[in-house]
Amino acid sequence: MTLFDPEIAKQGAATLGVLHGVGLGPGDPELVTVKAARIIGEARIVAYFGKRGRTSHAREIASRYFAKDCEELLLAYPVTTELPFDSPEYVRALAFFYEEGARSLAERLTQGHDVALLCEGDPLFYGSFMHMFARLDGRFRVEICTGVSGMSGCFAAARQPMTWGDDVMTVLPATLQEDVLADRLAASDAAVVMKLGGNFAKLRRALAQAGLLERAIYIEYGTMAGEKIMPLSDKADDDAPYFAMALVPGRGRRP
Amino acid sequence: MTLFDPEIAKQGAATLGVLHGVGLGPGDPELVTVKAARIIGEARIVAYFGKRGRTSHAREIASRYFAKDCEELLLAYPVTTELPFDSPEYVRALAFFYEEGARSLAERLTQGHDVALLCEGDPLFYGSFMHMFARLDGRFRVEICTGVSGMSGCFAAARQPMTWGDDVMTVLPATLQEDVLADRLAASDAAVVMKLGGNFAKLRRALAQAGLLERAIYIEYGTMAGEKIMPLSDKADDDAPYFAMALVPGRGRRP
Repeated sequence: MTLFDPEIAKQGAATLGVLHGVGLGPGDPELVTVKAARIIGEARIVAYFGKRGRTSHAREIASRYFAKDCEELLLAYPVTTELPFDSPEYVRALAFFYEEGARSLAERLTQGHDVALLCEGDPLFYGSFMHMFARLDGRFRVEICTGVSGMSGCFAAARQPMTWGDDVMTVLPATLQEDVLADRLAASDAAVVMKLGGNFAKLRRALAQAGLLERAIYIEYGTMAGEKIMPLSDKADDDAPYFAMALVPGRGRRP
Repeated sequence: MTLFDPEIAKQGAATLGVLHGVGLGPGDPELVTVKAARIIGEARIVAYFGKRGRTSHAREIASRYFAKDCEELLLAYPVTTELPFDSPEYVRALAFFYEEGARSLAERLTQGHDVALLCEGDPLFYGSFMHMFARLDGRFRVEICTGVSGMSGCFAAARQPMTWGDDVMTVLPATLQEDVLADRLAASDAAVVMKLGGNFAKLRRALAQAGLLERAIYIEYGTMAGEKIMPLSDKADDDAPYFAMALVPGRGRRP
């Protein structure tokens, strides 16, 4: 599949569109930066990831900043509910999706249109935007507007100072093996565990093994409607949304 | 020293002021959130840390959002240039400074005035605000408005996707011992090293020991005037400002 025809680029180099990767922050529309709000408001084309037929979360955060007559471009995730996350089929479906998304963006950019691509959180921290950036940067001008990361949003929602003095903080996906998780947690002064989902029971065991169960805080939908925050040890069940997070705040130097 | 008189609080409980800890992001005034800009604009008293007689960096970022007639309250850092960072004298001077700052804020809050306290970056991530929060929360109502962390600003300034798939990211202060730094770096998929300052030569050696020298990126004044970004191995000298950062971007799963 050709994403981009260098001949077309040469002919139209001066008129190629600019891709803006725009970080939206953790969920509260007011936690969008002034810069991001400006870029979104100026955009003639606003693109976002989402599931066909479902509300796009990125769109919900950003829509109050849209220009009235902007064109919306949905980059629709493939339906993969029946595929396990680590299966080759899932990876293939995602790769196809990213190629299609990049092709769709490249088409608009080649026509000379600027596109604002919405990204939840910080666009360069576990973000889908990165897969577009890897495919399109260099071929087109790509500008990146940072945003408040989901984890920074959760620090504030949980009212937890995370790192003091010389604290070392580790960010871990809960997808890691239980022993690896426990070792990493034990070696950290502060920790953020992402992507809880079906890994919650394993994480609870790993925290206990690391002696950190009593210090851990569980957060789902941080800064959003439906926000839930509690000591992780108080959580009665092992169900957690994929984007739920656990925090272990640091306890370093406090003059 | 009494920070707060519970008797006064009881008498005036309904009229105590609210302390807003307001994250300002990494330095570019446009990277302030819409919410932070609103809180700052509504504040009758804006407080910030800074050195007496010098420009306060927090003030520079936020001043465009100040109400015209707001009162400014400088919490002046003690002069400590002659004291080593890890000396008991330095810690004592800082502790005294934080007590004085909290006392000064408590005075306004007790009088029933709300105060917006400006915090560079994310207020709960290695922030001076945390020392005020630890002293004043519970005695007064404290609201926290998150902000873009300095490291997120640097990811974008350096145009580096930092974490892919199941990458583990470690945030390390360069103040750690050389061997510890090297071990931690070697065990990470992605790393952010903060507080470079006089630790640069040591960090360079630790990165080399971990086999990561060629992947590391050096950043000073990310998103600000004077921004410098380069492969760390290209840096000719060992001088770095205290707030300079090094990034080792992850190389995880990329469908």
